[in-house]
Amino acid sequence: MSLVDIPVEDTFGGEPVAGASDLRAALHSRYHATRQLSIALSEPLAPEEYRIQSMPDVSPPWWNLGHTTWFFAKNILEPRTSYRLPGRLEYALNSYYETHGDRVPRHQRGLLSSPTTPEVLELRRDVDQRMSDLIADTDDDGWADLDFLVTTGIQHEQQHQELMVTEIKHILSVNAPGACRTYREGVLPTTSPSPLSWHAVSGGLRHFGSDDRSWCWDNEQPRHQAYNHDFEISSRLVTTAEYLEFIEDGGYEDPLLWLANGWAIGCERSWSSPLYWSQDRRTEFTLRGERELDPCAPIQHVSYYEADAYATWRSRTDAAYEGCRLPTEREWEQAASELGFAPETGNLLESEHFNSVAAPPDSQPFAQAAGDLWEWTSSHYEPYPGYRPFEGDLMEYNGKFMDNQRVLRGGSCATPRSHIRSTYRNFWPADTRFQFSGIRLARSI
Amino acid sequence: MSLVDIPVEDTFGGEPVAGASDLRAALHSRYHATRQLSIALSEPLAPEEYRIQSMPDVSPPWWNLGHTTWFFAKNILEPRTSYRLPGRLEYALNSYYETHGDRVPRHQRGLLSSPTTPEVLELRRDVDQRMSDLIADTDDDGWADLDFLVTTGIQHEQQHQELMVTEIKHILSVNAPGACRTYREGVLPTTSPSPLSWHAVSGGLRHFGSDDRSWCWDNEQPRHQAYNHDFEISSRLVTTAEYLEFIEDGGYEDPLLWLANGWAIGCERSWSSPLYWSQDRRTEFTLRGERELDPCAPIQHVSYYEADAYATWRSRTDAAYEGCRLPTEREWEQAASELGFAPETGNLLESEHFNSVAAPPDSQPFAQAAGDLWEWTSSHYEPYPGYRPFEGDLMEYNGKFMDNQRVLRGGSCATPRSHIRSTYRNFWPADTRFQFSGIRLARSI
Amino acid sequence: MSLVDIPVEDTFGGEPVAGASDLRAALHSRYHATRQLSIALSEPLAPEEYRIQSMPDVSPPWWNLGHTTWFFAKNILEPRTSYRLPGRLEYALNSYYETHGDRVPRHQRGLLSSPTTPEVLELRRDVDQRMSDLIADTDDDGWADLDFLVTTGIQHEQQHQELMVTEIKHILSVNAPGACRTYREGVLPTTSPSPLSWHAVSGGLRHFGSDDRSWCWDNEQPRHQAYNHDFEISSRLVTTAEYLEFIEDGGYEDPLLWLANGWAIGCERSWSSPLYWSQDRRTEFTLRGERELDPCAPIQHVSYYEADAYATWRSRTDAAYEGCRLPTEREWEQAASELGFAPETGNLLESEHFNSVAAPPDSQPFAQAAGDLWEWTSSHYEPYPGYRPFEGDLMEYNGKFMDNQRVLRGGSCATPRSHIRSTYRNFWPADTRFQFSGIRLARSI
Amino acid sequence: MSLVDIPVEDTFGGEPVAGASDLRAALHSRYHATRQLSIALSEPLAPEEYRIQSMPDVSPPWWNLGHTTWFFAKNILEPRTSYRLPGRLEYALNSYYETHGDRVPRHQRGLLSSPTTPEVLELRRDVDQRMSDLIADTDDDGWADLDFLVTTGIQHEQQHQELMVTEIKHILSVNAPGACRTYREGVLPTTSPSPLSWHAVSGGLRHFGSDDRSWCWDNEQPRHQAYNHDFEISSRLVTTAEYLEFIEDGGYEDPLLWLANGWAIGCERSWSSPLYWSQDRRTEFTLRGERELDPCAPIQHVSYYEADAYATWRSRTDAAYEGCRLPTEREWEQAASELGFAPETGNLLESEHFNSVAAPPDSQPFAQAAGDLWEWTSSHYEPYPGYRPFEGDLMEYNGKFMDNQRVLRGGSCATPRSHIRSTYRNFWPADTRFQFSGIRLARSI
Repeated sequence: MSLVDIPVEDTFGGEPVAGASDLRAALHSRYHATRQLSIALSEPLAPEEYRIQSMPDVSPPWWNLGHTTWFFAKNILEPRTSYRLPGRLEYALNSYYETHGDRVPRHQRGLLSSPTTPEVLELRRDVDQRMSDLIADTDDDGWADLDFLVTTGIQHEQQHQELMVTEIKHILSVNAPGACRTYREGVLPTTSPSPLSWHAVSGGLRHFGSDDRSWCWDNEQPRHQAYNHDFEISSRLVTTAEYLEFIEDGGYEDPLLWLANGWAIGCERSWSSPLYWSQDRRTEFTLRGERELDPCAPIQHVSYYEADAYATWRSRTDAAYEGCRLPTEREWEQAASELGFAPETGNLLESEHFNSVAAPPDSQPFAQAAGDLWEWTSSHYEPYPGYRPFEGDLMEYNGKFMDNQRVLRGGSCATPRSHIRSTYRNFWPADTRFQFSGIRLARSI
Repeated sequence: MSLVDIPVEDTFGGEPVAGASDLRAALHSRYHATRQLSIALSEPLAPEEYRIQSMPDVSPPWWNLGHTTWFFAKNILEPRTSYRLPGRLEYALNSYYETHGDRVPRHQRGLLSSPTTPEVLELRRDVDQRMSDLIADTDDDGWADLDFLVTTGIQHEQQHQELMVTEIKHILSVNAPGACRTYREGVLPTTSPSPLSWHAVSGGLRHFGSDDRSWCWDNEQPRHQAYNHDFEISSRLVTTAEYLEFIEDGGYEDPLLWLANGWAIGCERSWSSPLYWSQDRRTEFTLRGERELDPCAPIQHVSYYEADAYATWRSRTDAAYEGCRLPTEREWEQAASELGFAPETGNLLESEHFNSVAAPPDSQPFAQAAGDLWEWTSSHYEPYPGYRPFEGDLMEYNGKFMDNQRVLRGGSCATPRSHIRSTYRNFWPADTRFQFSGIRLARSI
Repeated sequence: MSLVDIPVEDTFGGEPVAGASDLRAALHSRYHATRQLSIALSEPLAPEEYRIQSMPDVSPPWWNLGHTTWFFAKNILEPRTSYRLPGRLEYALNSYYETHGDRVPRHQRGLLSSPTTPEVLELRRDVDQRMSDLIADTDDDGWADLDFLVTTGIQHEQQHQELMVTEIKHILSVNAPGACRTYREGVLPTTSPSPLSWHAVSGGLRHFGSDDRSWCWDNEQPRHQAYNHDFEISSRLVTTAEYLEFIEDGGYEDPLLWLANGWAIGCERSWSSPLYWSQDRRTEFTLRGERELDPCAPIQHVSYYEADAYATWRSRTDAAYEGCRLPTEREWEQAASELGFAPETGNLLESEHFNSVAAPPDSQPFAQAAGDLWEWTSSHYEPYPGYRPFEGDLMEYNGKFMDNQRVLRGGSCATPRSHIRSTYRNFWPADTRFQFSGIRLARSI
Repeated sequence: MSLVDIPVEDTFGGEPVAGASDLRAALHSRYHATRQLSIALSEPLAPEEYRIQSMPDVSPPWWNLGHTTWFFAKNILEPRTSYRLPGRLEYALNSYYETHGDRVPRHQRGLLSSPTTPEVLELRRDVDQRMSDLIADTDDDGWADLDFLVTTGIQHEQQHQELMVTEIKHILSVNAPGACRTYREGVLPTTSPSPLSWHAVSGGLRHFGSDDRSWCWDNEQPRHQAYNHDFEISSRLVTTAEYLEFIEDGGYEDPLLWLANGWAIGCERSWSSPLYWSQDRRTEFTLRGERELDPCAPIQHVSYYEADAYATWRSRTDAAYEGCRLPTEREWEQAASELGFAPETGNLLESEHFNSVAAPPDSQPFAQAAGDLWEWTSSHYEPYPGYRPFEGDLMEYNGKFMDNQRVLRGGSCATPRSHIRSTYRNFWPADTRFQFSGIRLARSI
């Protein structure tokens, strides 16, 4: 099954679906389209590839398929129906919910052979049927709650769809030289991007966060005021060619360009280029196989530390970039609000590129903001003023991770189109490189 | 020598000193008073105690005495005079300055037997004499630079004075049960504090950071606008008695109260009480020896994770505290600005308590803000908008550490009085417990 | 396919095979019977279970199937035919042969998804066909060499058959409680064994090692003289009931019973019973599923350290055992030579128990010597006097591992019957528990 | 105080001392001469150097001075007098005796500042006085026990004298380049040694171990028969010049020369020469300061793995050495017995070289056997047949370490002359390099 076989429009959340007779049909349709997409994303895999945990941060694909199902079973079916997930599956499929008891340690998911992949797929079918029944049978009193929870489960599964794509890339990459399989065939579009330019944004008191009354994550709320100073933001992402200049100028060897933690980690792990590059810096591993570096494509798979060091280096060595740095998350959000943020035309999951691609010369002012690569911001992940976690078991979803991570904005080529918003806050530790992450520059005026 | 033998007023920075005939005499006086205080702080130590690195984060006292001297030698004497520090001392006494070349790894300072303690003291005397000469000989053209650098060196040494006190506490604590020496004799004052109350602070656009034209750290600048929401702040620090309620209610066993990183670290290190407590939770090790817990004294030696978990627990279990949390650093700074911040009456280094003490019942509204304990804020350590590091070699001083640390405010019982300001930003990783750190609460209105 | 479908007699080495028209047919038959047995052993596995590396010491079953094939390809086919193993398979399937170049680190075999299991099986079929052709086509000049190498390859594959069984046990054991699959169905025989008795063996100069002119490992040679003192050896293995007395008497809590390394490792890993036991000490995981402990069956899955501590404890607390200890490997070999060693009646792989079973009351004097469990000897693994490694690439087979390991003797319920000899020297680090290892006692007279 | 100030003859054990009026005076004299020697060995140290634990295997000198005193206090004074060691000293000074309760973890001895060095010296004086009294006051009934225990304590202290010397070398070596202090001044003798030759030794049944009725370690007993095959042993130790040939031929880069464990450890620790060598392989750090390599002096500070790899390389590349290897411990002991073993002329502690020195051309057949360097044998450290540990608390002295160590024979330039015997069994893990260890070759005939 190709992704185009799935009624993509049905995966958009929040809005009425053409032809759906009522809300139940719309939710039903969104639920099943989402569930179908997860299956479609894993279908190119060999049975072996479903089981690999190529590093502690990566989960085996079977686990993503199972855990997303566990989410519906534990949070929706169990409290509302007589369904009970078998204990052995609770142990295997719980991620980090302390309220749901003992679970396999995260770094040992790849040691489990039970449940088997067919068992996971069977569990999905069973839960899907029960979810269909529940959606059909819930009366108006229970609807608001159900709608919220199913939508949350859909958004949760979309996060794991993105994870599956990035993790599959890592899983396929760890084989013998020359033995790395290709996830998709075909070549990627390229073109020469316009020179990077700067767009001025006026500071002042602004509103940030989401006031979406249908649904958003708790970490996007409450909508609140904060103050931005005047700043400029770059018209597109930093390209591979531009990043190569940093490498060739000794960027990976100069500690004065780096945050202290980044320098220590880079030394320890012998970083000398982004993740997935060959030793000779000519090719990189992609989900379309080993390929020549595209100098025009946004540099991808860089950690926060590399992004920050690049900005520092560029700021010090290039007069046209004096004072450049990474944007704060509120600068980024204001830029998206004022310069435009267009997921419908972005390089997101549904474009099936599974890679960043060069921005066309006639791009919009804030090009590549939606999709291509998550953009590191300089903001640590903290609660917004007045933040309140989701209630009940979902309380553990976001709040407890607000520590020593950096916020990324904008979505990537692995993000489902209906999942991203300009207020969306992604977050990863600063040394993370296996996500589709890139570099947007800003500077104070 | 007791601390009271040192002309304490001379250690205040920035202002003309009574009786000093000119700026040179004033700087000379501040320089030597500071240098003398470092010696006085180490004098109670046995020769053995000068050499111990009781954990990787702790430096042996000889090293603090030597490194602060290295700072003057490398940054002031070498560029201005023919003096050259011997290479073996550069290796041993450089902390983290990449521009100054190879150095002993931080966690191996305790392995060095060279330089000996007498050699370090001799180095201090030599450098002090040369600094006296240089201050006397510098003409008006070079004065501004010299004044800035000497003041920076003094402030740097004051930071290490605080470190020496906290590190000596750790060094003395690791001996056999019953064999831990006492740094100072005598008992500490105590009294029953007033019940904790809340002071409302009105939000809005405010200015933050320092505009001190004489001297401040680069991380306090530039002075800039930001927006605070309305909030309340607690009238005093959380006491030991209050924290014991958290422990007795199972606070250390409930993962739902903790940040995920904090829970993992607490499990790994078997945390069940603050640092330095005995197993039976009746006594704690202090610089005045093992003593009964003082229920009225502010709870000390807690990590950020413990401070945050305490606030979460209190918020959920005590209606009078609903919504309580740690303050942001800008909330803290505004409270200090509006409610008062009085180092001259605070429990700082010169009070020679070397421990937090109970707030008197008739305290000012923002009691214990200056001194007693550093107060964890919820803010990660980030550059202010428009931040520029110091120039030259001092560029490495602050900026490269702005990653995965939390800001603390207000100074502690180990902070020299002339070192603290309401804009002062201290920072430590969230798992740090050996600093004099405590808990201030806030809440949104 | 069940193991009984394989002509077991054909897996015996060294002797002419009934009905074989000549040596070529005999070798052909032994080769294919061995290869068939490996497939039969893995056939009960689910596709997932072929890929799991449940700890660094365990290889995934696909790897054992592939590596044994690599052995024939690299050591026999490549030097004699135009066949060349693809480089990506060399990387994945080489174990530890430095002469064969880069290879996947041992602890990362479980991260590979390439080659897939079907690719490994296809490789086996291809190599088997080529081996058939080579055996048929080799003329008399090349026969001796070929016969030696094919026999070595068969013995190598038999070692991996034993490894596969022990590793499959570990792989199946790491799933969620209650989710561990059963490798074989059915119950195991049990009976009450006779009381343990002692058989005296007279010391003196004796010959040790193998003079087998057909084939043996290099570490069994040369046959040589050495001196044994008079000793006694126990009539059977230590039972589970006897070992439980050690546990119940606090054996795991008394450091004075343990070698220092064993005590440190046991504390670090929280050992309180043999591997695979439940917390309540009532059941153990076996290849026939979770089952009640059989008090009559030999205690299994103990490390050298546990075996040694048991002997020390028994020696000190039980007058009937005063002076008991583990035997040296030469005591064991002399006992086997004089008291009898009978693989044909032992509990070996072909009995399909896959577990130790109780010795019948009317056992031979040196009961359970062949099969059931490998018996820890007190001898470190060292070369025999005059030892010479195999020539050429096989030089790396044994010699480089003669360091900090202990010798085990006698074979186990996972050892192919035609693989074991009384001179056979198995070896494992003293902390190994996942092998089928047990306790034989001896004492000096 | 120089070592020559100590009546060296008095440190010989076992025999009546000239001029001593009775056994009590002799024991008294040996006791105090030994105790005085420990002090003399530490006297060149600066106060700082007494406290350093430069790696986990090294104890600070104060600890050696204290622990040897603890031995007399716990094993002799406490059971016989009213003396009781303070608990805090028990904690600090116990090494590994489980029967004596909690103790500072071995790798944390360097973290203690209590007891101070003066306190340790005061403890020594106090215990020495009490020991004098006890020796004088013990009547004939108690004499045999006392004599055994005091002699054991003396031998124990001699082991720690050797440790102190080797540990002081390591402690002094870890300072900044150019800052390593010299323990002794002056140059070392050198001369061109004779070419290495081989001495044939006839095999057969021989006796090994000690039958000394006065005193020896439990691990040297019982005297027992074992069988040696015919062998040859080299006339002297391998020299630095000979070892340099191994290095220059790529010995550290060829895995086929190494035991698998040795290769892994060498890679992990980046071994490319013996310990203490400079990067350019021209100088080495010695207790007489940094000095040019002496090509004639025995190669020192090599691990077992390096010694074994050297022998393998030499055997394969030099026809005159074909079949050479390290000797077994029983080959070594027979060679010493038949070719001569002469501590009185050896380079031992009392020669005050503190370094290996070249063998004079006219050396005895088994030159350098006593002193210079401990000689690695290929024998793992195992109990002799019929081994019984010392009784009581001393049971823990040797037996529990008989696991994964290699035996060394002959003593070194840091071994007190009265401490060494031809039956003496030293033992260290195979990766140990900070001991004075070297290479003797043997080969089978």
